Parts: sequence; C-alpha cells; structure tokens
Amino acid sequence: MANITKRVSWSSLCEDRAPGEGTALLDDTPGARRCRRQEETLKQPNEIPHNEKLLSLKYESLDYDNIENQLFLEEEGQMSPMGFKCVEISRWVICGLIGFLTGLIACFIDIVVEIVAAYKYKIVKRYIDQFVVEGGLCASVILWAILNSAFVMAGSLVVAIFEPIAAGSGIPQIKCYLNGVKIPRVVRLKTLVVKVFGVICSVVGGLAVGKEGPMIHSGAVVAAGVSQGRSTSLKKDLKIFEYFRRDTEKRDFVSAGAAAGVSAAFGAPVGGVLFSLEEGASFWNQMLTWRIFFASMISTFTLNFFRSIYNGNPGELANPGLINFGQFESGAYKLYEIPIFICMGAVGGVLGAGFNALNYWLTIFRIRYIHRSYLQVIEAILAAAATATVSYILMYCSDDCQTPGEHQAVEYPLQLFCPDGQHNSIATVFFNTPERSVRNLFHNFPGSYNSLTLFLFTFTYFFLACWTYGLTVSAGVFIPSLLLGAAWGRLIGNLLTNSGVSIFADPGKYALMGAAAQLGGIVRMTLSLTVIMVEATGNVTYGLPIMLVLMTSKIVGDYFAEGLYDIHIKLQSVPFLGWEAPATSHSFTAREVMSSPVMCFNRTEKVGTIVDVLSNTSAKHNGFPIVSDFTTNEPGRICGLILRSQLIVLLKHKVFVERAQLKQRKLLLKDFRDAYPRFPPIQSIHVSQDERECTMDLTEFMNPTPYTVPQETSLPRVFKLFRALGLRHLVVVDNENRVVGLVTRKDLARYHLGKHGLEELQLAQT
Amino acid sequence: MANITKRVSWSSLCEDRAPGEGTALLDDTPGARRCRRQEETLKQPNEIPHNEKLLSLKYESLDYDNIENQLFLEEEGQMSPMGFKCVEISRWVICGLIGFLTGLIACFIDIVVEIVAAYKYKIVKRYIDQFVVEGGLCASVILWAILNSAFVMAGSLVVAIFEPIAAGSGIPQIKCYLNGVKIPRVVRLKTLVVKVFGVICSVVGGLAVGKEGPMIHSGAVVAAGVSQGRSTSLKKDLKIFEYFRRDTEKRDFVSAGAAAGVSAAFGAPVGGVLFSLEEGASFWNQMLTWRIFFASMISTFTLNFFRSIYNGNPGELANPGLINFGQFESGAYKLYEIPIFICMGAVGGVLGAGFNALNYWLTIFRIRYIHRSYLQVIEAILAAAATATVSYILMYCSDDCQTPGEHQAVEYPLQLFCPDGQHNSIATVFFNTPERSVRNLFHNFPGSYNSLTLFLFTFTYFFLACWTYGLTVSAGVFIPSLLLGAAWGRLIGNLLTNSGVSIFADPGKYALMGAAAQLGGIVRMTLSLTVIMVEATGNVTYGLPIMLVLMTSKIVGDYFAEGLYDIHIKLQSVPFLGWEAPATSHSFTAREVMSSPVMCFNRTEKVGTIVDVLSNTSAKHNGFPIVSDFTTNEPGRICGLILRSQLIVLLKHKVFVERAQLKQRKLLLKDFRDAYPRFPPIQSIHVSQDERECTMDLTEFMNPTPYTVPQETSLPRVFKLFRALGLRHLVVVDNENRVVGLVTRKDLARYHLGKHGLEELQLAQT
Repeated sequence: MANITKRVSWSSLCEDRAPGEGTALLDDTPGARRCRRQEETLKQPNEIPHNEKLLSLKYESLDYDNIENQLFLEEEGQMSPMGFKCVEISRWVICGLIGFLTGLIACFIDIVVEIVAAYKYKIVKRYIDQFVVEGGLCASVILWAILNSAFVMAGSLVVAIFEPIAAGSGIPQIKCYLNGVKIPRVVRLKTLVVKVFGVICSVVGGLAVGKEGPMIHSGAVVAAGVSQGRSTSLKKDLKIFEYFRRDTEKRDFVSAGAAAGVSAAFGAPVGGVLFSLEEGASFWNQMLTWRIFFASMISTFTLNFFRSIYNGNPGELANPGLINFGQFESGAYKLYEIPIFICMGAVGGVLGAGFNALNYWLTIFRIRYIHRSYLQVIEAILAAAATATVSYILMYCSDDCQTPGEHQAVEYPLQLFCPDGQHNSIATVFFNTPERSVRNLFHNFPGSYNSLTLFLFTFTYFFLACWTYGLTVSAGVFIPSLLLGAAWGRLIGNLLTNSGVSIFADPGKYALMGAAAQLGGIVRMTLSLTVIMVEATGNVTYGLPIMLVLMTSKIVGDYFAEGLYDIHIKLQSVPFLGWEAPATSHSFTAREVMSSPVMCFNRTEKVGTIVDVLSNTSAKHNGFPIVSDFTTNEPGRICGLILRSQLIVLLKHKVFVERAQLKQRKLLLKDFRDAYPRFPPIQSIHVSQDERECTMDLTEFMNPTPYTVPQETSLPRVFKLFRALGLRHLVVVDNENRVVGLVTRKDLARYHLGKHGLEELQLAQT
Repeated sequence: MANITKRVSWSSLCEDRAPGEGTALLDDTPGARRCRRQEETLKQPNEIPHNEKLLSLKYESLDYDNIENQLFLEEEGQMSPMGFKCVEISRWVICGLIGFLTGLIACFIDIVVEIVAAYKYKIVKRYIDQFVVEGGLCASVILWAILNSAFVMAGSLVVAIFEPIAAGSGIPQIKCYLNGVKIPRVVRLKTLVVKVFGVICSVVGGLAVGKEGPMIHSGAVVAAGVSQGRSTSLKKDLKIFEYFRRDTEKRDFVSAGAAAGVSAAFGAPVGGVLFSLEEGASFWNQMLTWRIFFASMISTFTLNFFRSIYNGNPGELANPGLINFGQFESGAYKLYEIPIFICMGAVGGVLGAGFNALNYWLTIFRIRYIHRSYLQVIEAILAAAATATVSYILMYCSDDCQTPGEHQAVEYPLQLFCPDGQHNSIATVFFNTPERSVRNLFHNFPGSYNSLTLFLFTFTYFFLACWTYGLTVSAGVFIPSLLLGAAWGRLIGNLLTNSGVSIFADPGKYALMGAAAQLGGIVRMTLSLTVIMVEATGNVTYGLPIMLVLMTSKIVGDYFAEGLYDIHIKLQSVPFLGWEAPATSHSFTAREVMSSPVMCFNRTEKVGTIVDVLSNTSAKHNGFPIVSDFTTNEPGRICGLILRSQLIVLLKHKVFVERAQLKQRKLLLKDFRDAYPRFPPIQSIHVSQDERECTMDLTEFMNPTPYTVPQETSLPRVFKLFRALGLRHLVVVDNENRVVGLVTRKDLARYHLGKHGLEELQLAQT
C-alpha cells in the first residue's frame, strides 16, 4: 500500500479564499503564503497562454546525483584500479572524438556555405551588373529575392516539418540542458541533421543570421551521441561506452560538446570552456574542465586543419574558428578612449534591451498567431524576400562609392551606379556573408564608409535582425549582433575621426567595441563572452576595454530588459535555476517551498500499488521516497529514494519476489543502462491481474542515502544544496527523519525577484 | 551536562591488536579498517617527524557554510532590497580596490628591482670590464658574490626573524587557503611587508628566483585586508565592510586577490580567474567569477598604467604583466612540429619530476637539520654566493661570443675575452634578471647561443634552481622553471636547426615550448597554466601546442612524482581535499570515516560544562552538535550546530540566562563580526565559580539546520557534499536523526590512493 503522508493544516487555512489570479505580490504572513501556493497548484492551467509568469511541469530534470544503490556498489567493488583508469581513458577518447566531429561539422557547414553563397552572389552580381547597363533593375531584385526565398524555404520547411526544436540558435535549449532540464528531442541525431541543413540554407538565403550559434547546439548533439556509443534514431548500438549511459556522465560530455561548438565557431577554446562552466557550473572539477578544454582544442584544431587543406595550404594553422575578427594592432587604444568605450557599452545596453523587448513582443505574437507550420514557413520566406528587397533598395539609393584599397579585397564588388573602378560601399556589407561584412567593418581603412550609409544600415538591419530571430529557421544571433554593433560602432568612430581631433584615427577599433557592446546588450553573457571576443580578436591587450564595454552593456541592459536567451527560456516556461536563491528569500523555509503530500513506497511494495501510482496521470511524480516503520497516521521514516525510471525497468523485467526462483539471472546495472534514456511509459507495460498481487523488493535498487533537509531549512540553503549537487529530488524530513515533503526543481524555480519584491510563478501542466 | 554519545562496538573489536606502525595498506574487512583507524588516532604523534604520510591536526578549516541562526535571519529580514544592492556594490568596490592595490604593489616591486638591479649590474660590469683588461678577475667575482650575498642576507634575515611564513612563493599556502584550510598568519599585513621586501632582495641578489609567484600571495593578503575594512596588525578599524567579516565572504575576496596577483604577474587576467577557480572551486558563481575577473583586469591595468608613466609614455597600455614573453609570430608552427612538441612535453615531465624529487629530499633534509633561523640565513647566503660564483665560472670558461643583432638590445653586455664589438653569450642569461633572460632565449635570433652554452646553463641552473626553492627567502619558482625550460628548449631548437632541415627555422619557438614543458612538469597546473602561458605570449594560436605540451608533461610527470606545490603541502601535513574521493572508496561509509564519540550540547547548557569542554586540550573540537530529548543511554536528536568561536563570544559577553535582566542589550551579529577572525582562546576568558553554575541558551545562536548524512552514506558521497558546499562539519545521524558522529576535513583528507590501493594517513597533533 502506498503510504501517502497527510497534509496537516494547509487546506483548512485556505478553503475560504477565492483562487487568486496572475502572479500576486507576496505578503509576508506565512499563512497567506502557504495558501497562495496551494491555490496556484490547484488552478487549471489550460486557460493560461504561454507566458513568462508560468512554470511548465512538462519538463523533467536531469539527475546529476549518482544513484548509489547496491547494484552500483557491487559493480564499483568489482572494478579494479585499472578498470577506473580505463574508464578515465575512454573519457578522454570520447572528448577527443567530440572535438574532432564538431570541428568536422563546422568545417562542412563553412565550406558548403562558402561554395553555395559564392555561386549565388556571382549569379546575382552578373544580372545586376548587366541590368545596370541595360536597365530593368527590377528583374534583378526579383531574381535575388526569389533565390534567397528558395533557400530559406527549403531550410524552413525541413525545420518546421521534421524537427521544430532545431529552429533558432539552440543556445537557450543547451543552456537549459546544462542547467539540468531535460528538453525533449534536443540532443538527437535528427535534430543535428536538420540543424546543419537549416543553417546552411538560412545563411545562404541571405537572412540576417549567423552560423556560429548553432555550432554550440551541434557540438552538444555530437557529444550526447558519441558518449553513449549508440544512436537510438539509427537503431545502432555499438556496445561501447556503456558505463556512461546515465545523466551524470552524459551531461559532462554535453558540456564538453557545447564548449567544442563555441571553440569551433569563434576559435575560442578557453571561451568555450568558460561558456560551459557559466551555464552548467554545478560540476566544476579539475579533470573534467581539462577534458572539456581538450575537446575544445581538438575542435578548433580540426576545423583549422581541414580548412587549411581546403584553402590549399595544408598545415597552415593560423585561422581558428568560423569567424575571425582579423588582426588588430596591438595596444592601439589610449587611456582617454576608455570613457568613450564605456559610453558605447551603455549605448549597446540600450539598443540591446530595445532589441530584446521588440523580439519579446514579436515572439508573443508568434506564439499566439503563427503556430501552424505553413504559416511559419511563409513568414520565413517573407523575411528572406524582405531582406533582399530592403538591401537592394538601400544599395540602389546609396551614392556612397569607394575605390578599393590595396589591403582590402572586396569579394563581390557591386559597381551599380558608381564610376568605373569604384564600387558601392553599402553593398560590401549587404551583398556579402555576414562574417565578411563584420570583418570589413573592423578592418577597412578609415573613410571606407560614410556616416549616412552606416546609419541607414544600422537602422534597417536592427529591424531585420530582430524579425529574423525566432523565425522557424536554424540560425544564430551572434553574428547579426556583431554586425549591427560594428556598424554603429564604426559610425561613432567616423564621427570622432571627422571631429577633426587627430587622436581618433582608427574607426575599426570603435567598430570592435560597438560589436562587443551590441552583442553583450543582447545576450548578456559575462566572462565567457569577454574571453570569446578576446580570443576571436587574437589580441590580449583589448581585454580590458572589451570587459568594461560588456560590463556596462550588461548593467545598462539589465535595467531595461532581460537577456534574449533568458527571455526565450522564460517564454518556454522552463524551470531554470539561477545562481542563487533570491536575496530576500531567507524567511522562506523548506516547509513552505516543498511539495506535499508525497507519494511514498515501502521497501517491499505490492506491484498493483506501484502500477497505480505510476499510472496516475494527475500527479506525474518521478521520484518516490522509500519509508519504513510507518503507522497509518504518521509519515514513515526515510530509508531510500527510487525513481520512476527504475520502477519502470523493474516492472518490465518483472522483478517480483514471488518470481525470484523463476528468473534466470539477477538484474544488473546494465539493464538500467540499456533502457536509458528513453524509458517506456507505464502504459506500455503489461501487468496481469495475477502479477498485480505480487510484491517487489525495492531495497536493492533504491538510493539508500538520498540527501535530506529538515523542514526549517531556509530557501537559500535548500537552493544551494540543490544547485551545488545538481539534485533532482530533495527529501524534506521532520526531526525524527519522517518524510514530510519533497523539493524538486520547480519548487525552487518558482521564486524570483521581481520589480516589487519576491514573486512566485504559477505551475502549469503544459 | 554534556551528552557524549557512546561508541558502541569498535573498542571491543580492537583491543587485542597491537598498534600498527606507519601507513598500512588497507585490507577490506570493515572490522580491520575500523580498528586501524582508531589505533592511529590514539597513537602518540610526537615521535613522528614531519612527513607526507601524516595529517596535522593543528590546522583549522574555514567555514564556507553560512551560519543561518536567528540573529542572521533577523538581520537579513531587516535588510531592504536596496540594502542587498548596496552590499553587492561594495563587493565590486572592494574588488576594484584589491585589483588596484595589487597592481600597485606589483609595480612597486618591479620598479625597485629594476632600479637596484641596474645599479648592481652596472657596478659589477664596470669592475669586470676593468679587471679583464688589468687582470685580477678574482676580485670581481668576490665583489659580485658579496653584493649578491648581502642582498640575500637582508631578505633572508627579515623573513627568518619576522615572518617565516613569507618564505617561498606562497602559492602552496594560498592553495591551502582557497581549499578551505586556515594557515596561521598567512594573510596578515606583516606577511605582506616582509614578502615584498624579501622578494626584492632575493631577485636583486641574483638568486634563481622570480618575483611572479609571490605576487599571488601578495594579492591574497591585500584582499584579506581590504575586504575586512580593518587591520588587526595596525590596530585600525575603519568600520566599513563589516558585513564581510566572515569566512564565506573573506574567502571569496581572497580568491579575487589571488587572481589579481596572477594577473599582475603574468598579464593574464583570465588565467588568474582560472587559477582561483582551479584552487578553490567549491564556489563557482557567475557574479563572483565576474567580480574576480574585474579585480584581475584592474590589477593588470594599474600595473600597466603606472609602468607606462615610469617608462615615460603614459597611457601606452601595451605591456601587461611583470613578465612578458614578447611578440611571437602568428601561427608559425606547422603540423609536423606537433609530435616534436609532445616529445618536449615528455622531457619536461621527466625533468620536472626529477626537480621535484630532488627538492623533496632537500626539503626533508632542511626540516631535519636546518631548522634554526641562523642556519637558514647562512644557507641562503651560501646559495647566493654559489650562484654568483658558478655563473662567473661558466662565463669565464665560455668562448661563445656573439655580435649583437639589430633588434636585440642586450642590457648588460659583458665583453670578457670576446673580440671588441662582441659580447659573451652566456652572460646574457646569467648576468641579467631572469625575466630578461627568458625573453632573450625566446626571441634572440637563431645562432645567438651555441649548444654547449645552453647545455651547460641548463645543467647548472637545474641544480641552482632546485637548491634555491625552499630557502628561507621570498621567491617564486615560475620564472626559474621557465628559464630552465627555455634553455633546453632552445637547445633542442638549435639541434633541429643544425640538423640541416630548413623547416625548423626558429629555435625561439622551441624555447617557448620547453619553458611550458618544464613549468608544467614542475607545478602540474592544467587549464590555468595553459591560459597564463597563452596570455603571456599574447598569441592565441599557440594555445593548442602549449596545451598538448602541458598535458604531456603533466601525465609523464605524475607518473614519477607529484607536483612541487603538492609535495610541499604534504610535507606540511595539511589536510588538503582533492577534487574527488579516491575512485575505489565506494565501499567506505560515513560510519567508518566519521569521528566518534561526539561532544554534544543541549539547547540550554550549563556554563561550567561548556567551559570544561572548550578547555579540554586533548580533544580540541571546533564544532558541537546541539541535541534534544536525549536519554542517558541514547544519543540525542540533532537540532543544531554551534562553533567554538561562537561559544567563546557568548562566554566573553556573558550571555547567561540568569543575567538576562541585567544585560543592557541583546547580542547582535555585529559582536561576532567584531571578534572575527582572531577569537581569543578559552583560557583568556575568566569565568567565576558563580558563573559556572549559570546556564546558556544556545538556541538563538546555533545553526538550526546543519547538513546531515545517514551512517550508510558512502565516502564519495560525503566527500562530494563536503567539497561542493565547502563544509567544516558534517553531522552523521542514525535513522532517527540521532547524532552518532561528525565528519570533518581531516576525516576525509586521510584517504588517498597510493601505489598499492587506498591508503590512510595518520593524524598528528603537530
């Protein structure tokens, strides 16, 4: 019989209150707090549309805590020190593989984009050049728009039909994964294939997107696949790396994959490591970090090596990363420029917050009205056509002609109405892959762009990029942000140069700072972004100004709106755990935070009871404390914890006490690993009426020493324990070790510091 | 009455066994394990000399866990959100100050060393030049040796007499501090002053030392001082930053200080952050990391700025760090060179292990025979004289003359017996500050040194550096290691160049790899060292080979001997916690690991009992569980934990129940902070016989929710909890929440994986 602990006093307190609506500001009387909590849980969630004041219950947590049950201890006991060494060596091998494959994928995307884009630009250029002479420019813009739309349509169709999770940059999803939230389908092979295809299409389709962000997602998928030694999609099990088939190990490898992705994208191995640490840092550990770094290095190196072969000078390893900011002059900034950089940081913060706010409304609009696949594809096509058209109009209206300099090769110079030997200046940014445009803005010599061009570009690109992020295409926001920032940064540089004060000689430097400010204002990463920028610049001396710029843009931006990724995570209602509990939450205790009553099992439990509890759809619990010596009126003493997934495996193998003599062999850890990570639902397991009367002995399989806290523990303390150990379930006990509640991720993620003090989010089933 | 929990069954098991000697290999029967544990604790420690098979009980732990008692909760409850913001802002201000002051100190050391060394070298050079012409070279070597010895004597005297903890680089001590061990006197102002003076003397005195390592220690001291807003040495309390007067906050700032130190030393702000994280990573947190980075940046920047003023071009911010490796050509290595680099890594590992082993024996020798101050000073003087003499003999015997090239200025060229217009080649490395010698080896053009010169230099410098590390002077091992590695690296480069294969053109590159290999082989840092090297090189493209080299040297080195810092930490018998529990320790449980019986108190306890327990010198406990409803035969239920330091404050303020009406005011958190960190010993507190009969109510002051684990918890699980949360005490309870034991740092640090499996260290009082 399931021993369900009773809720003692809450119900009576709350009965006479009407259910509250929306997120209420909390007043501090404990009674009121407890009631509100309960009301919200009781509320029907279906009426509430997607919004950020909600936490979804559909996401499961990853379990970063080892289940140290008897099976595990037996297995560990049998392993020799040599065995542990072998495991360690395989970890290194896997990390090497992750790096290698991630680098290879980056290389593939890069080369394909380069070839196809070159082909596209050549065709369009020929037609434009021809029509400028012959007249009928209208036809060329239509051609350009159609070409772009076709590519984008292909990419968007694949994403919308086959794998919608592959849309966007994937960084929010990976952030969630590293934070410990299981996002369905996010690390599957199919997602990777769709993502790679989608990225190529959207970049070639001329959208305001980058191919860098998606590399992080790709790296993570590679890691999740390689480390498990099998692919469920391909139904292929190599029977290797079986030891790593559990959340703890997998998450370590995924963090290595994400790092390898950053490393390949920006040539920033250290930045990659820091990215992984910033996002999933409950698990810093010297050897792990070192392995992550290894994967990152191998990834940059692989990309570099294969690209050097493609470029015809094999072994030339000078250009790491998909994007390279080119060589900046060493230490070329002066002390008096630092205040200017800081001001630029503030501008970046404001613009970034504007970008995020606009994108937020757009996303809300999309969630409400554009939720059919065909509408999403049409929107993407429209965006592609609009981008081409607007670019064309800007180029057409511009009279900014430039003579190409010695050191700056323009890849696809468009003459348009410029005199012979000159080319249209705005075309070097619009009629180009965005990576090249960024580099042009950084390095083209002073005077390459006039200020009006830059202003018009900034203005239009701001809206284009904002529209584009969130389309149903695979694409990143890093490069568009950099490009946007580089444009207005260079504009500021131009204005300073034109101010007649000769000390501001190089607008490229300001373009770099603008790029950093804009990117920082949008994504709000801190240390990792600084390091990524410094590594991409290849120049350590720019570290200080870049840090100051990013810091300012974050502070200013945070004042107005949240970071773009955080906004999208909130809109998905993901129970994301921050770094610390809200500062003012010390007055909350585990008793108020925990979920209660808790479903508990006995050490030996009737099969029927277990099946009933697991089948109960209204309370889809995933962890069940095991209790002993309970009486009917009192909760039992904790003696273990068992997971739904373990029970499912036990039921599937029919590990019943009454059948013990019939069974050929003992259940091993291997059986649990084989079922990992896609455990079948309870509905798919057939349990006959006879079997329902059998009993199961859970002692051997439960985690005998789950972490517990007393009821009076403060929220920050619970939070710290939960976060530091990467827990999924934390049992709350009274002073006699009796189970009184269970804290899960959702119970902690509910509390956050809003404008008016501590707020509590609602829970929803969807 | 103190409720002392009874030990149930161990004693009887062990009585018939003779006490074991030395560290025994563990066999796996739990009975045997328990017995041995007890024997070792019972053993008289005085007979055992300092060695690495011992853990000292004299070191206390830092408490990284917040004491969330009622006073704390009340204070937090009264703070407004604005108040929390102010605290956050002060944290930033403090970090800025830490960075600024650390940079300033680095700048001071640098400039003083430069001025004094220049003066010294000029005098010696004049005499040498003169004596070469006139004869009587013997006099010049004596002059040089005496000058050096005088400087070293001054430095050594100050260290030996005033502050012995200031000897060495201070990195092992800071590692311990960040790991959570309180090393007495390590972060005091006096230590800083002695350290700065000592470093200047030993560098100017021409020893084989660097001034970079000590910067880390200096930064840490600055941080510990600034963040507390007072100096106990100066008896000055500024009454600011009082909120930060506790271990948790202080340790965060000290990690920022250490990072700022690394940053100033190597111009490596990211490396600094990673160093702090590698050493004290139980506390990664985005905002904290970002603040640490801020301190690092400000530190480099300050150093840079003031040095630019000193050099006469203010605002020129191109040369961060005390040591700068100079500009390396971008991407100048080829794929086929990577295997060579890896082999060099292996050589570095072997040489490093040799260095460490030799230094280990030397340190043992020193501990046994050179423990008087005057002997230590004499040894230092001898080392200085020997260094000068050996250098001189080498220069004298060398016939390697070089013409100075265009791009390489030699600071103090010694002609000796070379033709006019040329200078002695070996003098450019010996007759120079080690930082300049390193740069020369990296960048002087091919052919500047002949192979014999380099070999002789490597050979002699190896022994000189090894002798020097561990002398009673303040000095670091980073630069000597780099110099040593650069020499043999360049030697390999020379041999490759001379091999006639034109592809190995630049021996400087090999010098860099050799330097990395040697340093890695000696100190065995991983990620942070890679980043430090990359930042000091200022060139991201060298990241991959440097990483491979460091990785190889670590793997090879670890095979033969431990890292230098680890050796010295072990020789001090510090209970240092590794990253993870030994892999094979899953069969150990908390029951076997914990200390037992535990001294417990009641919620209200007699003053006399408390004083007696605190005065008991044989069991100097620092944490006491508070229990309730115990009977005489059974241990009580845990309801809190109180620290010795808290009890001391309570006794000092005579917070007795019977005196409650007499007291003017309630005790506040402030009173505890004022006493922090140097709580008086119990002996200094006078408690009258009347007062002994009073009672104290500890409820308000105890931590009501200490972390607990059940007895069956495995060692790795206990370890993980302890490490992740930075605990000092972990209470072990039975299944009814009764206290049965206490796990502290020493109980966990005892277990380590030796050559023959799991070993257990002994505990000693000294």
